[in-house]
Amino acid sequence: MTTLDNRPHTALLVIDVQNDVVGAAHNRDGVIANISTLVDKARGEGVPVVWIQHSDEGLPEGSEGWQYVPELRRGEDEPLVAKHYGDSFEETMLESVLSERGVGRIVVTGAQTDACVRATLHGALVRGYDATLVADAHTTEDLRQWGIPVSPEQVIAHTNAYWSEAKAPGRTGDTVATAEVSFRAT
Amino acid sequence: MTTLDNRPHTALLVIDVQNDVVGAAHNRDGVIANISTLVDKARGEGVPVVWIQHSDEGLPEGSEGWQYVPELRRGEDEPLVAKHYGDSFEETMLESVLSERGVGRIVVTGAQTDACVRATLHGALVRGYDATLVADAHTTEDLRQWGIPVSPEQVIAHTNAYWSEAKAPGRTGDTVATAEVSFRAT
Repeated sequence: MTTLDNRPHTALLVIDVQNDVVGAAHNRDGVIANISTLVDKARGEGVPVVWIQHSDEGLPEGSEGWQYVPELRRGEDEPLVAKHYGDSFEETMLESVLSERGVGRIVVTGAQTDACVRATLHGALVRGYDATLVADAHTTEDLRQWGIPVSPEQVIAHTNAYWSEAKAPGRTGDTVATAEVSFRAT
Repeated sequence: MTTLDNRPHTALLVIDVQNDVVGAAHNRDGVIANISTLVDKARGEGVPVVWIQHSDEGLPEGSEGWQYVPELRRGEDEPLVAKHYGDSFEETMLESVLSERGVGRIVVTGAQTDACVRATLHGALVRGYDATLVADAHTTEDLRQWGIPVSPEQVIAHTNAYWSEAKAPGRTGDTVATAEVSFRAT
């Protein structure tokens, strides 16, 4: 359905599952296990797995907190995309990584729901991609102490609900559970 | 701050304040009063007011529900942009309306927070605009009966909070109250 030409393929995106990003996240271990399941499935089907890794002043490149969680290991031939903004397409190699692989649909996992996951979903749809959010493979921490008036469970469930209605001419957003993810074009 | 060339100006966007969109919305009258205040202020300063009007199968063009609420009256020379998707930039005249007026920053009001307002905010930032959300001039209805696990008040407050942190290279998102809106470039 994507409006991008010659992009029949799907990629799995793993966003910012770094020590300090998910250290205090809701259902951290369960979400990482689901992402691990999806990574294995993608590899088994020859689907590209694209790893996104954030850095900024609060999360310096090379620090322990910046490292990916130990449960997830990138394959040597799998692309690693460094980013500095919420939207993984902004000033990164992501567009070329996907274009080179003929990818017009992304399956999105990772953290944080409220920031980089959401911004990347919208960023993809605006740029012509189909974007599938995996309902039980993204998470965020409790930000109520910072004035966010909803619990992490609510943020996750709410994002899952509204993204399932996202659409734009020629492409769609949808939300599926890990067990239901298909990497075939929809 | 916008990355669009020769776009020093700001426009006020009024999104989908139509009878059936806001009929059951949280604080309908208060939000419309705030939008009315902003429309008057924009007109007084010579700032473009751009009216967005949605239609689709559930909200047919020409129907009573499709009409703008009686409290808000478009000026004859103010652009009206018809849309059919959540993101007001998708298959509409909005980009050309803003380009012709040298607008690189939009001030966003209207409905629904969860759908067209949010999609348009992200759509603007991705396309190079600065995008200001007016905290007390957008609204949504109670969608808990449809599985949205948050109240309208929470959706509004949450969107206000996270959008204040939105940024991309060369442009920013921010959230301000009606009384604090400035139409000068930031």
